[in-house]
Amino acid sequence: MSEQERRETALLDRVLGSFDGCRDPRLGEVMRSLVRHLHGFLRETRLTEEEWERAIAFLTATGHITDARRQEFILLSDVLGASMQTITINNEAEGDATEATVFGPFFVEDSPRVPVGGDISFGAAGEPCWVEGTVVDTTGRPVPGARIEVWEADEDGRYDVQYDDGRTAARAHLFSDADGHYAFWGVTPTPYPIPHDGPVGALLAAVGRSPMRAAHLHFMVTAPGLRRLVTHIFVRGDEFLGRDSVFGVKESLVKDFERQPYGTATPDGRHVEGTWSRTRFDIVLARAEV
Amino acid sequence: MSEQERRETALLDRVLGSFDGCRDPRLGEVMRSLVRHLHGFLRETRLTEEEWERAIAFLTATGHITDARRQEFILLSDVLGASMQTITINNEAEGDATEATVFGPFFVEDSPRVPVGGDISFGAAGEPCWVEGTVVDTTGRPVPGARIEVWEADEDGRYDVQYDDGRTAARAHLFSDADGHYAFWGVTPTPYPIPHDGPVGALLAAVGRSPMRAAHLHFMVTAPGLRRLVTHIFVRGDEFLGRDSVFGVKESLVKDFERQPYGTATPDGRHVEGTWSRTRFDIVLARAEV
Repeated sequence: MSEQERRETALLDRVLGSFDGCRDPRLGEVMRSLVRHLHGFLRETRLTEEEWERAIAFLTATGHITDARRQEFILLSDVLGASMQTITINNEAEGDATEATVFGPFFVEDSPRVPVGGDISFGAAGEPCWVEGTVVDTTGRPVPGARIEVWEADEDGRYDVQYDDGRTAARAHLFSDADGHYAFWGVTPTPYPIPHDGPVGALLAAVGRSPMRAAHLHFMVTAPGLRRLVTHIFVRGDEFLGRDSVFGVKESLVKDFERQPYGTATPDGRHVEGTWSRTRFDIVLARAEV
Repeated sequence: MSEQERRETALLDRVLGSFDGCRDPRLGEVMRSLVRHLHGFLRETRLTEEEWERAIAFLTATGHITDARRQEFILLSDVLGASMQTITINNEAEGDATEATVFGPFFVEDSPRVPVGGDISFGAAGEPCWVEGTVVDTTGRPVPGARIEVWEADEDGRYDVQYDDGRTAARAHLFSDADGHYAFWGVTPTPYPIPHDGPVGALLAAVGRSPMRAAHLHFMVTAPGLRRLVTHIFVRGDEFLGRDSVFGVKESLVKDFERQPYGTATPDGRHVEGTWSRTRFDIVLARAEV
């Protein structure tokens, strides 16, 4: 080992040893792993002092743009795939249970309730979209009474919380029926960019990445004794599927949204002016962790 | 490979691939290494979603306490040993060249100049301390005219920039003489805590670590054709040497500060009321990087 290597590993060992007195074993484990990877990163890249200064300035700017309405650190975690990796880790693969994806910042508690077959759009602009499916557990048994929260952006890529007038639109909850079936009218999802006028947007531009999210519709499904599922469905054929800025896309969540020609009869006899689309999303809930 | 492992590595590969279009090769290299280590940390610790939320909250608080006068991200880098590791990496071992250590936040440009043998304390409270040595290069040749910046805290652990009245004290610069020799009067260093009333202080408390820095005296030495040296000297016997909160201590930088009994004659005939101390710090400058 060279003298230089000896100095670097001795320093790392000293930092790791500084957590020996930590009385919270889990915190000690997390900090030691963090330090090993942080020093691994510094040593592998031979980070220069100027690069370190730029990193400090980046974190500082990220902190300063963050407020009650904007969370740039979550955005940073998202574009580095750290949010998605955390979700993947915490939703262990179990049989054919539906895969989870990022929660995102646009969920709101106490959404309006609609019946099965109801309309969640509440006037949000966009092409009408009929969504239906069943909720089952990993043994294939239907799950009646599952609470299904759905939320999405309008055709301009905006969620209701981004409107100026405070109205609720394109979000609701409903419950699966006795057969585990659910259905609702929403709007056909369209792609939109994550906020990209801050440090994270500048980072994406510097590395040549797009801030666009693939078009999607959010679900959160809960039922007693089963694992909560937070996920999206995506639109097959969307140009951003392969380069979603937050890495939320999983092949199993990409669905056919079939566009229906003008005048096509709707499943519930509703009159639609113009085209509409329909998709199917069958949901499989894993067992709750013990 | 299990399905779970397949999902985690597939995600990591997708994130790494997102930097393929980066036109700045160095930035791409740094980002890929960062992502590999970040995901390695998440997967190794199986970080929970609640822990991820606490991490986001920690970074947010760190951002919000940071302003023009306080840099909590640098403090965080310091207590994780990342600052010291960056300095170690950027000051490659070269023969017996003096080791570097952390710069710290208390350096000020345009310090007053004192002659060899002058007093840098400018009224800062503390036991007088005589510091002397020579500056040489790694071939042993004396370096005349080296600019030596020195700065330190007073006996209460405060730097002049932390005073309310804006006066300059316990900092100065001088130049080595024709034989590379230098000497000055300062004050005997004493230990002090890093700012610990913020998120970083809370982290140190949670892991059972002290915020104290081992007593030290800062040096920055520059000379044409030689590598700039930023370092400290430490006081042998100081109780915090083994647990300096920012990992700045290197054995080669620990010096004997010999306390002189009341009435001991001083090197330059100066009259000192009470005890004083003396130390020697011979400085070896590496070649400048090409």
